[in-house]
Amino acid sequence: MTRIEMAKKGIITEEVRQVAQEEGVFPEELSQNIAEGRVVITRNILRNIKPLGIGKGLRTKINANIGTSRDKTDIQEELEKLDIAVKYGADAVMDLSTGGPLTEMRRAILKHSSVSIGTVPIYEVAVRAIEKYGNIVKMTVDDIFNVIEEHAKDGVDFVTVHCGVTKKIVEMLKSGDRVLPIVSRGGSILADWICYHDKENPLYEYFDRLLELAKKYDLTLSLGDGLRPGCLADATDRYQLIELITIGKLKDIAISEGVQCIIEGPGHLPLNHVETNIKLQKSICKEAPFYVLGPLVTDCAMGYDHIAAAIGGALAGMYGADFLCYVTPSEHIRLPDKEDVKEGVIASRIAAHAADIAKGYAKAWQRDNKMAEARRNFDWQSQISLSFDPDKVHSMRSERPPLEDEKVCSMCGEFCAIKISRRAVE
Amino acid sequence: MTRIEMAKKGIITEEVRQVAQEEGVFPEELSQNIAEGRVVITRNILRNIKPLGIGKGLRTKINANIGTSRDKTDIQEELEKLDIAVKYGADAVMDLSTGGPLTEMRRAILKHSSVSIGTVPIYEVAVRAIEKYGNIVKMTVDDIFNVIEEHAKDGVDFVTVHCGVTKKIVEMLKSGDRVLPIVSRGGSILADWICYHDKENPLYEYFDRLLELAKKYDLTLSLGDGLRPGCLADATDRYQLIELITIGKLKDIAISEGVQCIIEGPGHLPLNHVETNIKLQKSICKEAPFYVLGPLVTDCAMGYDHIAAAIGGALAGMYGADFLCYVTPSEHIRLPDKEDVKEGVIASRIAAHAADIAKGYAKAWQRDNKMAEARRNFDWQSQISLSFDPDKVHSMRSERPPLEDEKVCSMCGEFCAIKISRRAVE
Repeated sequence: MTRIEMAKKGIITEEVRQVAQEEGVFPEELSQNIAEGRVVITRNILRNIKPLGIGKGLRTKINANIGTSRDKTDIQEELEKLDIAVKYGADAVMDLSTGGPLTEMRRAILKHSSVSIGTVPIYEVAVRAIEKYGNIVKMTVDDIFNVIEEHAKDGVDFVTVHCGVTKKIVEMLKSGDRVLPIVSRGGSILADWICYHDKENPLYEYFDRLLELAKKYDLTLSLGDGLRPGCLADATDRYQLIELITIGKLKDIAISEGVQCIIEGPGHLPLNHVETNIKLQKSICKEAPFYVLGPLVTDCAMGYDHIAAAIGGALAGMYGADFLCYVTPSEHIRLPDKEDVKEGVIASRIAAHAADIAKGYAKAWQRDNKMAEARRNFDWQSQISLSFDPDKVHSMRSERPPLEDEKVCSMCGEFCAIKISRRAVE
Repeated sequence: MTRIEMAKKGIITEEVRQVAQEEGVFPEELSQNIAEGRVVITRNILRNIKPLGIGKGLRTKINANIGTSRDKTDIQEELEKLDIAVKYGADAVMDLSTGGPLTEMRRAILKHSSVSIGTVPIYEVAVRAIEKYGNIVKMTVDDIFNVIEEHAKDGVDFVTVHCGVTKKIVEMLKSGDRVLPIVSRGGSILADWICYHDKENPLYEYFDRLLELAKKYDLTLSLGDGLRPGCLADATDRYQLIELITIGKLKDIAISEGVQCIIEGPGHLPLNHVETNIKLQKSICKEAPFYVLGPLVTDCAMGYDHIAAAIGGALAGMYGADFLCYVTPSEHIRLPDKEDVKEGVIASRIAAHAADIAKGYAKAWQRDNKMAEARRNFDWQSQISLSFDPDKVHSMRSERPPLEDEKVCSMCGEFCAIKISRRAVE
């Protein structure tokens, strides 16, 4: 039985209890949310990692993407990125490799990782199609499902599948009223296949086959948004919404078949579209976990897209997004390096934490309250350890230390407001 | 006559026309907003800089704080910070120096700066009081006003004055129901003085004297929030609101006397308090320009407070904040260095831009639309020049260039979604 099937029968598993305890929620409530598709636990039955709960009532989670491209292939570097991502608080990591020995890479990451691992199998299908047939569009339906099954067999915990990129919507796109028709790699590969063969997207047409496969491994499906807007001008348009409606419908089928689903979301959104997008998804997809990429609140933050994504992600989280995909400073420029991964994870952690504060999540508030207390008491050791990057804070303070009074910092020195005001009013 | 007096008489000055043209608004509307206190133009009559409009209907502006502390005194470094701040888009800079030769520093900054300069004169009053009397609290009422006048005479464009830190509120604070009673340096200095002398805050008691002085130079008053919350636990509490009500009342008096005012605001706020805070300020202060410090949406982002501030600032801007004070990665740790200034300004620029996008500000949208078009066309030169830090983007791309096709980037390489999808659907 899958998790959903057990939850539907009212069986509260050890795994559910473990997640419930970690999150500070009741196991019965968590189980009910799993049964009805509002929470997923992303763990392949073949894997022995700490289970990760994502969804309603739980802490906002973050994902870090790593992986090679054909322009940069180095397994060791990717494993180091994985370590960095986990060190700074990534709850899950996706291997998006498209270059080098993909199977070897994926297995190394799965072996090395203590957190949930996701993949986008269509990338590997495309890479193999080029190797085998010399062209992406020559991939066969079996090629697609075989790779997905390989990923599941290797222990992948969740896979992005762009089931909502239907033949109809790809035809609609030809009207040319989008600035950037498709900015999702998986979405564009499938669109290319659909146009070439004049056939329906196999992940849509044979969704039942996908479900059958997912059930075997209790593999979570992350229903990808191949039509996510790639610039503000395309935000919240008909293509995005039609795809959302499609994947919302597929999600209902998946839940009824006992397969867990996450819904993926934008993308590039003006700040004033964020609330609408989250509420739409929550309504159309009946509170299924929402996994947003950013959202990026401007197209112009190249080199600093982690900040544009933190702005959008925090707001999305406050309105109910459950899972934030990080964005690194390298977005739109190049494959990220290790420092980019660190910057991306920390920015995303701050966004998720700010969202949890806004949602009233008790553990998040406890941390901030401890920080405030440490500030009040000039307790620098506690402040450093409560920060998201203690080493950085420690070294920054050491570089420009206070000279007259070690209680304060070199920003205000003797004119420390906390020191003066406590003297005045206490 | 001051700007407000002229605007009240319906005189549209050259300065107003210049700002109106820059902002893409009608001069008559701008003038009306100045007359009624919804917009300020921060320029001392003694200064010959480009006038800066802040307030209703205008682009969201950002301020960068620079200046020495007793723990770090280096005029040259501060001038370099000024250059960096302006280079990356600071609309105004505040000199918050409290260490070294303050007058020399201020004059050097004023001479060097092409943008509006603000100060917090009470800092210098405090520094001199220590030199002269050995104790902050020994400063006299004349000492306070003399320093403010010196700043105005030197050409300072706007000054922060903590007029709302009244004797009554300082007494209320003694109840001890705040974690951090005061985190504003100026606020704490005045509270210390009030408690020691058991007298009213001179900036409140002699507000008429302040107005008289401000009128002479058309000096803009930035009514400081000495009681801003310094941690999430203290956010949007009675102290903050009582002070806001007080300064809202003082602002009305100032406008009626022809003196321009900005209202300063928080501080540390949970993300879900931001909208309320902006709407409260806009209502209580009758749409006076709102100048927020951050707001920081978590207490725990030490080392990355520029990101916490960008999240809060973007949201604040969307809801109507007009002027964002940057926060650097050094906040809560040390006096910022040059790199911190750069990081802080860019994060704040992104926040202000995201807010302008959300507000529908046409020039902001034009920039993003150009970026989207450049992406569509694989036009890297335009993408780089439309970014907030072209040098960084250029060097990041050069470090990990695409190897097979210079149109794309090394993130996706050959699997560039834009390339594939344009082939498929166009």
